[in-house]
Amino acid sequence: MQRIRITIAYDGTDFCGWQLQKGVRTVQGELETAISRITGTQIRVHGSGRTDSGVHALGQVVHFDVDDRMASVPWQRALNSLLPDDITVLDCIPVSGDFHSRFNAVRKSYTYTLWLNNGFFLPWRRRYVWKCGPLDLEMLDRGMEMFLGKHDFASFQNTGTPVSSTVREIYEFSRQSGQNRDEIVLRVCGSGFLKQMVRNMVGCLVEIGRGKADPGFVRSLLEKKDRTMAPATAPAQGLCLEAVYYGEEGCDGPDAGRKQSHMENGHDGEV
Amino acid sequence: MQRIRITIAYDGTDFCGWQLQKGVRTVQGELETAISRITGTQIRVHGSGRTDSGVHALGQVVHFDVDDRMASVPWQRALNSLLPDDITVLDCIPVSGDFHSRFNAVRKSYTYTLWLNNGFFLPWRRRYVWKCGPLDLEMLDRGMEMFLGKHDFASFQNTGTPVSSTVREIYEFSRQSGQNRDEIVLRVCGSGFLKQMVRNMVGCLVEIGRGKADPGFVRSLLEKKDRTMAPATAPAQGLCLEAVYYGEEGCDGPDAGRKQSHMENGHDGEV
Repeated sequence: MQRIRITIAYDGTDFCGWQLQKGVRTVQGELETAISRITGTQIRVHGSGRTDSGVHALGQVVHFDVDDRMASVPWQRALNSLLPDDITVLDCIPVSGDFHSRFNAVRKSYTYTLWLNNGFFLPWRRRYVWKCGPLDLEMLDRGMEMFLGKHDFASFQNTGTPVSSTVREIYEFSRQSGQNRDEIVLRVCGSGFLKQMVRNMVGCLVEIGRGKADPGFVRSLLEKKDRTMAPATAPAQGLCLEAVYYGEEGCDGPDAGRKQSHMENGHDGEV
Repeated sequence: MQRIRITIAYDGTDFCGWQLQKGVRTVQGELETAISRITGTQIRVHGSGRTDSGVHALGQVVHFDVDDRMASVPWQRALNSLLPDDITVLDCIPVSGDFHSRFNAVRKSYTYTLWLNNGFFLPWRRRYVWKCGPLDLEMLDRGMEMFLGKHDFASFQNTGTPVSSTVREIYEFSRQSGQNRDEIVLRVCGSGFLKQMVRNMVGCLVEIGRGKADPGFVRSLLEKKDRTMAPATAPAQGLCLEAVYYGEEGCDGPDAGRKQSHMENGHDGEV
């Protein structure tokens, strides 16, 4: 058997998330269909983690196993010719059977894009931003700072996926300019993320940016370990799984995170 | 009566074009529905021109007449609160009854976005670019140059809309960098455009950029005045009506065109 590792980008708009489900269109489902058409056998793929309905990915990492005789297939080209145009394989490498996209992942980074202007909007951005309106960016920055480090994120976890521990470490939470003057991009890199944790953190940050809570609110929520105390989850469409890291490099600088999964071939990748 | 002039942006993906048609979703239809909900009477709107199904607009100009007692309605805000999120009113001004969005337009500019890489693609760009693959940009530039000036564009007109003359003047045809490294934006400004003329010009330019014709092909097509000799029409989704001009300013510089309809309030507007 040969294990293949691919990095994929997808527009989450028209998918019911990553995970295979009967009767609905999912990223995993589309990938397995395309791969199985090439191999002629049913192939299971393993992603670095799930993404919810409407959430995008620029650097989702996936692995699957094929017969040795299929190892020489030009997988990237073959898959891109079969996949629908809202999924793209950005790169593809053969890896050892030890590699596991989920269990070997040591860090992940996400971006969340906010649209800050209530009066002006570009309609083609609607599937990629949360139109949250004006925010106090200094307060937002102070709120992001409060998330840095190792904490119990029980207050920022939505129910549905049992986990052994709700402790995670956030290495970076930064604000970057977006592709339009009314957009900002929040980039967060951490050891791992609980269910809807990024969207819950962003929901809290927007409350702070709106002046409805002060940055210390983050600390008090972390201490309470109670999801019911925290603000509502931010909408899915602003979120993008940017990159998954496997121990080779860090993600503490604003550009470091772009290297791993999609910058290998020298491409920018604005969402 | 008070005449109102609005500038709108829309994502053409989910519209059957601009023009009102029974039983399908059109930009004109959505606008008339929203305006009529505010006025309580049936209002007809007039656009600077039609756009086809899938074609976007960043600066479509529209006018309509309302009773004097409705003149003080905060139209931009009121319409944006009622319109679906794939149409936005970017600005709104009361104008004299002499103003006509179509008859007074003296110039228009369009952008057409091309994706040049066959191997790499960002899936969220699929509704806004033509993925045409690699092109010889020098040849493309030389082809664009051949369109400049006043010509009979009969070879670049699709049938369906009778016009008194097929002579038009192109003031500018330039290549700009896009928002991703694999994109380029062709910007064309002219006195007016025949049905699908921009897409037909782009279809011809891509043939030249692919080395299947030389730049002189443009001249020979212009001379032949025969649509059947010209290459296929470029797909709709790469096209965006950028701005409509009413005589106050030119459009011969790469930035001039951004001023009129959407830069008044200082916003960039990448498609």
